[in-house]
Amino acid sequence: MMRTHYCGQLNPSLADQEITLCGWVHRRRDHGGVIFLDIRDREGLAQVVFDPDREETFNKADRVRSEFVVKVTGKVRPRPEGAVNPNMASGAIEVLGYELEVLSQAETPPFPLDEYSDVGEETRLRYRFIDLRRPEMAAKLKLRSKITSSVRRFLDDNDFLDVETPILTRATPEGARDYLVPSRTHPGTFFALPQSPQLFKQLLMISGFDRYYQIAKCFRDEDLRADRQPEFTQIDIETSFMDEQDIMGLTEGMIRQLFKEVLDVELGDFPRMPFSEAMQRYGSDKPDLRIPLELVDVEDQLADVEFKVFSGPAKDPKGRVAALRVPGGASMPRKQIDDYTKYVGIYGAKGLAYIKVNERAKGVEGLQSPIVKFIPEDNLQVILDRVGAEDGDIIFFGADKARIVSEALGALRIKLGHDLELLTCEWAPLWVVDFPMFEEDDEGRLSALHHPFTAPQCSPEDLKSNPATALSRAYDMVLNGTELGGGSIRIHRRDMQQAVFEILGIGAEEQQEKFGFLLDALKYGAPPHGGLAFGLDRLVMLITGASSIREVIAFPKTQSAACVMTQAPGTVDAKALRELNIRLREQPKVE
Amino acid sequence: MMRTHYCGQLNPSLADQEITLCGWVHRRRDHGGVIFLDIRDREGLAQVVFDPDREETFNKADRVRSEFVVKVTGKVRPRPEGAVNPNMASGAIEVLGYELEVLSQAETPPFPLDEYSDVGEETRLRYRFIDLRRPEMAAKLKLRSKITSSVRRFLDDNDFLDVETPILTRATPEGARDYLVPSRTHPGTFFALPQSPQLFKQLLMISGFDRYYQIAKCFRDEDLRADRQPEFTQIDIETSFMDEQDIMGLTEGMIRQLFKEVLDVELGDFPRMPFSEAMQRYGSDKPDLRIPLELVDVEDQLADVEFKVFSGPAKDPKGRVAALRVPGGASMPRKQIDDYTKYVGIYGAKGLAYIKVNERAKGVEGLQSPIVKFIPEDNLQVILDRVGAEDGDIIFFGADKARIVSEALGALRIKLGHDLELLTCEWAPLWVVDFPMFEEDDEGRLSALHHPFTAPQCSPEDLKSNPATALSRAYDMVLNGTELGGGSIRIHRRDMQQAVFEILGIGAEEQQEKFGFLLDALKYGAPPHGGLAFGLDRLVMLITGASSIREVIAFPKTQSAACVMTQAPGTVDAKALRELNIRLREQPKVE
Repeated sequence: MMRTHYCGQLNPSLADQEITLCGWVHRRRDHGGVIFLDIRDREGLAQVVFDPDREETFNKADRVRSEFVVKVTGKVRPRPEGAVNPNMASGAIEVLGYELEVLSQAETPPFPLDEYSDVGEETRLRYRFIDLRRPEMAAKLKLRSKITSSVRRFLDDNDFLDVETPILTRATPEGARDYLVPSRTHPGTFFALPQSPQLFKQLLMISGFDRYYQIAKCFRDEDLRADRQPEFTQIDIETSFMDEQDIMGLTEGMIRQLFKEVLDVELGDFPRMPFSEAMQRYGSDKPDLRIPLELVDVEDQLADVEFKVFSGPAKDPKGRVAALRVPGGASMPRKQIDDYTKYVGIYGAKGLAYIKVNERAKGVEGLQSPIVKFIPEDNLQVILDRVGAEDGDIIFFGADKARIVSEALGALRIKLGHDLELLTCEWAPLWVVDFPMFEEDDEGRLSALHHPFTAPQCSPEDLKSNPATALSRAYDMVLNGTELGGGSIRIHRRDMQQAVFEILGIGAEEQQEKFGFLLDALKYGAPPHGGLAFGLDRLVMLITGASSIREVIAFPKTQSAACVMTQAPGTVDAKALRELNIRLREQPKVE
Repeated sequence: MMRTHYCGQLNPSLADQEITLCGWVHRRRDHGGVIFLDIRDREGLAQVVFDPDREETFNKADRVRSEFVVKVTGKVRPRPEGAVNPNMASGAIEVLGYELEVLSQAETPPFPLDEYSDVGEETRLRYRFIDLRRPEMAAKLKLRSKITSSVRRFLDDNDFLDVETPILTRATPEGARDYLVPSRTHPGTFFALPQSPQLFKQLLMISGFDRYYQIAKCFRDEDLRADRQPEFTQIDIETSFMDEQDIMGLTEGMIRQLFKEVLDVELGDFPRMPFSEAMQRYGSDKPDLRIPLELVDVEDQLADVEFKVFSGPAKDPKGRVAALRVPGGASMPRKQIDDYTKYVGIYGAKGLAYIKVNERAKGVEGLQSPIVKFIPEDNLQVILDRVGAEDGDIIFFGADKARIVSEALGALRIKLGHDLELLTCEWAPLWVVDFPMFEEDDEGRLSALHHPFTAPQCSPEDLKSNPATALSRAYDMVLNGTELGGGSIRIHRRDMQQAVFEILGIGAEEQQEKFGFLLDALKYGAPPHGGLAFGLDRLVMLITGASSIREVIAFPKTQSAACVMTQAPGTVDAKALRELNIRLREQPKVE
C-alpha cells in the first residue's frame, strides 16, 4: 500500500517515525519562509511542513494547490509549544516533509470545501464527488456504514439469515405508485420495483427460514417531500414462532446495541403505549416523549357551555376538546400566540383559544383569557385542576373533529417543546401498540392502517362483525417523534386473510389475481409469523443529526426525482423502445 | 419464543430434558401402535414418538398430516439400541411427545418434499415456497447467507465502508442491454437499472472514501443462458492508493478466509499467470488448473509440411497449431474419438487429428494415426518429445485460426479431464493478469476487453501508437475454470481516459454526453484507484456445488425472465401508462 498511516491516525506516540501519507491538499499556507500543507484523507487531517533546506521537495510543495492528490513521506514530530491545535485529531503533532509526489493535479473546485454554507444544493449535487469530500458529509456516510455493520452483526449473532428478494417483481400492494419496468421478452407487460419485500419475506417464513433479514432497497414513485427519496433502504426483518412481545424485545435489543456501539448511548427499556393513549396524551401515533407537555381531554366540562365552538365538538362523538398546559407560558406576548394560531391553522384548526394563569388564588380574576367568560366557574376549576395549572402557565385549547384537534395540538406541542427549549432528554424511544386494524375515510370506507397482511387481535368472525373497532397486532418503534420502524404479527390463516380482503372490498377474483400465490401458500402449512421494517435512511438521519435525507445518501435524487450529476433520467433511442414494445406518447403530460 | 430448541440442535446431552419444538411434520409413521412424527425446522429433523398412554395427545398426533405446522413439547431420550440413525444430526435421540398443538393445517403439497427429482422445474418455481422447504434447497440459501456474512466481516475488519449506490440511474456503459424505467416526472425520459456500480464506485474514490464495498444488485436485459439471471449480485470493491498487487493480495485473502470459514478448506497462495500463458497452455483465459493436460504449440514443426491443414495455420500469423497429450489415451476406441471430433466442432474446429502412441521405441511403426504420413520423422520426434509422449498416450491436434484452436482444444481439455477423471485436486484458484487492453473484431475494430475505465500498463502516447498490443492493469480471479471475479486499476488521468475513448471510437461529443461527469471528476484531483467485483451467485454455486444459478437464488426468474410464482411481469392499467407518458405498441414484437 502506498500509505503507512491515515492522516487522522497520527499522534504523539509516532514521534520520530518516518511515515507516508496519501491524500488531498486541504489547505496550504506559506508562513515564515516555510510551506504548510494540511493533507486530508478519510480519517482526518495532518499538517505537513516543508522547509527550504530540502530544496527540490520544497519547490514541489510550492507548486501544489488545493485538492491536488499527493503522497508525502516525512517524520512525525511534536508541534512547537503554542502551535498545538486541539480541534484536530492529529493536532499535537506535525510531519516534517522529506518527499512529496503529486499523484494528481486539480483544477480549482467549483466550491470551496471548508466554506460550503452558501453553496446551493443543486451545485453540491451536481458535483457530488466534491461535496462528499467535505468532512461532515464523509462522516455521515461513514456512520451509515457503521450502523449497517452493527445491525448486521446483531442479526447474524441472533441466527438471522440474509436472503435477497427480487427487485424485478410484481406490483406490490403498499398502495403508493410503483416504478415500472417494461419487459422485453413478454411484450405489453411490466415488472414493478418493490415498495417492500413484504410478501417475499412472508413466503420465506412459509418456507421455514424462521429468521430472515435483508437490508433492502425499496421504491416509490411519489412526489417527494423533504424526507422522501424514490429509492430508500429498509432493514427488513421477519421471524416465525415468535409473538409480538418476542419480536419487540429482540429488535429493541438491536437498536439498543446500535446506539451503544455508535453513540455510546444507553437507551434503556422502551416504554410501550397503546395507540389510543398516544393519541389522547400526545395527539400523535408517534409521540415525541422528550417534550413534557400533554394533551388533556376536557369534553365533559364543556359539553353544556353556551360557547358553541366548545360545546359542538364536545357533544360530537367524532369531536374532541383538549387542553395543553405550557408551564411558564403566561408571559408569552400576543404576537407569539397569534403565530401559534396560524401554525395550528396548517392542521385545519380554526383558532387557538387560551387561558393565561396569572394568579389562581384570585379565581377568575387571576385568569387572562378571551374565553373564560363562556365557561362556568366550577367547570373552569375542574379543568385547571385536571391540567395541573399553576401561576404563570398558559393553557391552549383545541375543539374540532378529533383528528384536527389531535394533529393541531400534537404539532403545537412539538413546536412549543422546541421553541421553549423544554426537551427533557436527548433520546426518547417507545413502542406504540394496539393500533386499529382499519382507518375509515369520510365516506366510511375502510383501509388497512398498516397493510392487509397484519393480524387482528380477534377471530375472523369478530373482525367481520366489528371491523371498525378491531385492534391489530401491529407495533411501531418511535424515537423522538419519528417512526423508526413498524411491523406486526401477520395473518397465517387463509380464512382470516380472506376476511380482511373482503372487509377492504377486495373481491374473490381480485384476491386470486393479485394475491393468489399468497393464498396458495397459506394452504400448505404457514407458521405463525411476524416481523418489522426499519427505515434505514431515517435511522441514519436521527443518529447523525442530518436535516435532510439527501445528507445521508451518497448519490440522492432531487425533489423532482432526478440526478443532476449523471443527468438521469435520460432519453433512450428508438430501437430500445421498439424492443420493449412501447412508444412515447406524442405530447408530454397529456392528462 | 415458542420453541426451546431447533430440531437439528437436539443431541444426547439433552437427555431427560423437557424441550419444545416448532416446525413442520416432515414424515409420519405408525408402527407397533405408536406414532412417529419427524418434525422439520430450519436446522434439521427430530423424531417425536407419541404413545397411546397419553390419549388426548395421541389422538391429536393421529390426525396430523404431512406439512402441518406443529408445536410439540416432550422429553428427550436416547433411542433404543438399533434405532439410532447416523444420517440424522439428532439421530441418536428421540423425543417422547407430551403435548402437541397444531398451529396450522396443510393440504397435500403439490409435490412430495423428499422425492423431488422427477418434479419439473416449472412446478418447483411456481410453488417456490414449498420447494425451498427441501433441506437441500434451504441449505444452499443458508450457506449463501453465511458466505455474505463472512465476506462482509472480512471487509469490515479491513476498514471498508459499505456505501449504497443508486438503482435508478443512467444507462451504464457495460455494453449489455439495460432495463429501463420510465420517469413520470420527466416525460419522455428513462432511468436505467445499473449493470454494475462501476462509475459510482470510482466517484466514491474521487470523493476520498478510500475503501468501498457493496453487495450490489446488478441488472442485464439479455437472453438468458443457464448461468445468467436478469438480476444478479456482485461483491463490489474499490480502493484508492493501492496497486494491483495490493488489491489481489487483499481480495485473495478474503476468498481464502471465506473458504476456510465455510468449507474448512485451505486454498493457499494463488498462482498468477499472464493471459498469454493461459491461452497458450490452456486455451482459455480462465483455465481449470485441476486438469493436468496442457496445449503445446507445434507450429514451428509443421509450417513446411505438405499437409495444408497443418501448414496453412502454421504459417498464418493469426493461426495456431497445437497438440494436447492425454496420458493413457491410446486405448480410446474410435467411437469416442469421433464423439470428441463432434464436440470440438461446436467450437468451429473442422476436425480432430490424433496420434496414438503405442510404442515409441518402434518409431513411426509404433504410432497409429491418419496423419503421421504427412509429417517428416524429424519433426514428428520433436513434437513427441515436446509434448512428453509416452507409450499408451493419445495426442490430439488442432490447426486453425488461433481463437478456434484455443477454444476447441481448451474445451476438449476440460471435457477429457472430467470424462477420464483426471482432476488432481478439489480447488484450483489462480489469478490471470496482463490482459490485452483491447480485442479486435474481424473488421479490425477495437473494443475494451474489460471496460473502458481500465488503466493500461503504458503511457497515453504509447497506447495511441500501439493499441492492439497494449496490456492492461486488469486481473481476473479464476477458480476451477470459472471466473469468480475481475477487476483492474482504473484510469485516474483525464488525458488517458480521453485517449482510451478515442481509440474506442467515442468522439468528444459522445464522451461529454455519456461520461461528462466522470471526465469532470477526473479534473478535480482523482487518486490512483482500482478494484474488483466478484459474482456472488457464481461463488455460491461453486461453494454449494449447485448446477444452476436458480438453485442459489431464493426467487429466481425462468429462462424467459419471468416469475411463475407471482406472475411477474404483469399487465398494468392504462392510467399508469399515461402517467408515465408511454403507450404500448399496437402489435407485439414489431421489428
